[in-house]
Amino acid sequence: MTAPIRLGLVGVGKIARDQHIPSIGRNLAFELVATASRSASVDGVARFATPAEMLDAMPQIDAVALCVPPQVRHGMAADALRRGKHVLLEKPPGATLSEVAHLADLAETQGVSLFATWHSRFAPGVAPARKWLAGRQVRSVRVEWKEDVRHWHPGQAWIWEPGGLGVFDPGINALSIVTDILPEPVFLTGGELSIPENRAAPIAASLQFAGVSGAVMTAEFDWRQTGPQTWDIHVGTDAGDLLLSSGGARLWIDGESVVDQAEAEYDGIYARFAELVASGGSDVDLAPLRHVADAFMLGRHVTVEPFHDQPNRDTA
Amino acid sequence: MTAPIRLGLVGVGKIARDQHIPSIGRNLAFELVATASRSASVDGVARFATPAEMLDAMPQIDAVALCVPPQVRHGMAADALRRGKHVLLEKPPGATLSEVAHLADLAETQGVSLFATWHSRFAPGVAPARKWLAGRQVRSVRVEWKEDVRHWHPGQAWIWEPGGLGVFDPGINALSIVTDILPEPVFLTGGELSIPENRAAPIAASLQFAGVSGAVMTAEFDWRQTGPQTWDIHVGTDAGDLLLSSGGARLWIDGESVVDQAEAEYDGIYARFAELVASGGSDVDLAPLRHVADAFMLGRHVTVEPFHDQPNRDTA
Repeated sequence: MTAPIRLGLVGVGKIARDQHIPSIGRNLAFELVATASRSASVDGVARFATPAEMLDAMPQIDAVALCVPPQVRHGMAADALRRGKHVLLEKPPGATLSEVAHLADLAETQGVSLFATWHSRFAPGVAPARKWLAGRQVRSVRVEWKEDVRHWHPGQAWIWEPGGLGVFDPGINALSIVTDILPEPVFLTGGELSIPENRAAPIAASLQFAGVSGAVMTAEFDWRQTGPQTWDIHVGTDAGDLLLSSGGARLWIDGESVVDQAEAEYDGIYARFAELVASGGSDVDLAPLRHVADAFMLGRHVTVEPFHDQPNRDTA
Repeated sequence: MTAPIRLGLVGVGKIARDQHIPSIGRNLAFELVATASRSASVDGVARFATPAEMLDAMPQIDAVALCVPPQVRHGMAADALRRGKHVLLEKPPGATLSEVAHLADLAETQGVSLFATWHSRFAPGVAPARKWLAGRQVRSVRVEWKEDVRHWHPGQAWIWEPGGLGVFDPGINALSIVTDILPEPVFLTGGELSIPENRAAPIAASLQFAGVSGAVMTAEFDWRQTGPQTWDIHVGTDAGDLLLSSGGARLWIDGESVVDQAEAEYDGIYARFAELVASGGSDVDLAPLRHVADAFMLGRHVTVEPFHDQPNRDTA
């Protein structure tokens, strides 16, 4: 057995505590040796205020996982890659496509692994769905991704700022699954983005796509859904229908349940990162973020009623 | 001398008449054998209503040049590539990044040449600017691209529709030059898009970029410029300053004029297309369109006063 990959974790917020740290702890290929965070620490692990200080003090670090918001990620990732570290990026991999394209080039030049993660691709129903769809002719795809932003992002102002992506923050999870399971690419043909008049980012989006062999796809993203939450992808083919539900945790084929399993997405992410480091490869698929950028560029932007975190201030 | 490339031209509008047809006529590597257009024709050249009819009737066509609007281009380009034809795309290469990425993959699979053209890269000052900048440390870049939309696009409603790109239609020319001449990539860090309240596309944009080694770049695109028109790129380096003016036709270095020449951009485009076909290569650089998509995604969208084609209806 080889020595574990010495990992520095940057950004100790909710996603790091809920997902990264437990998954790293369960994976023998990794050893969490340091964190960088202005405000939080992990018991028994060396803590630094910035990733530069962390990498200066502990040159033995092999790899860095970045869980900070996308707007500040590029500089930290580029610095780590230039120091010869492998880098894992939380989703979305950056605030722009161009900066992530640069990181991919830099990782290749440096001969290290860059992993732009899409956690939803590791949901238990996704790989079986991809396998079932391979070789089938897709006719229609219907994505419904509807959740209550007040429940999932209470009081988080930054998600409404430019670069925060608004409803595309969850919607990109759906796009990361679709671009992984469909046997052929799709591209946007039109859409509408609904922007609350007091916010900069969309609260809903209604998108139309075409597949390169004539499939038709629609995606409805909505952050105004109260009651039951919906994260469903319906795919109709020439030989049966598929429903991927609960964000990819459940899979039905022709109405029959074939996967219904607790998710372990981040365990999958770290297993894949260990493989990439071992093989010297990178995994940087820009397709999900590219669809989001296409939607902002080609979609019609429509102003809708203001959004307030306190629902009783909503008087539509 | 090898036989000329038999070319079918799709879309016989202003850009085809003003630029493509004269440049094709001057280049011995090409023979214009057919056109596809619903409304216009070229004397002495076979005409068809659609590109599919053209390619069905004349299977000897080697290559297709697409001068139709980007929103309808993907289907035509994909069909031509699948038939084994080389394809030239006017700028911008498509309405979305995803569809152009698909065309690039398809051209590679089919073993034919795809050329996503950026005509401004063939302006006479551009190659000398690139050469001069190579090896210099860029500190600042200032792009000013300001013109009068009423003069250049009188009554053209489609440029204001989603996918028409608004002021990015000329602005992407500046971005195509910048991404060609700078020795290092830049990426957007923020910006503001000004959308007239009665239109879907921006009339102005103010963008900030960072270079990967610390250069700072700004770009001001404005379609409301009356009087003198401005298409300038200023670059400050550790060893002198450069000004590329008149859209790339004029180059000053440290205040001294080094290029001042009539443009022959489309002659350059067709010379390059002939090289690509001869060598079996493709040239598909998505960087300019990627910056535009990044600007739509990361930039703040601001509503400004309505735009009317008749200026006397403007009461700001």
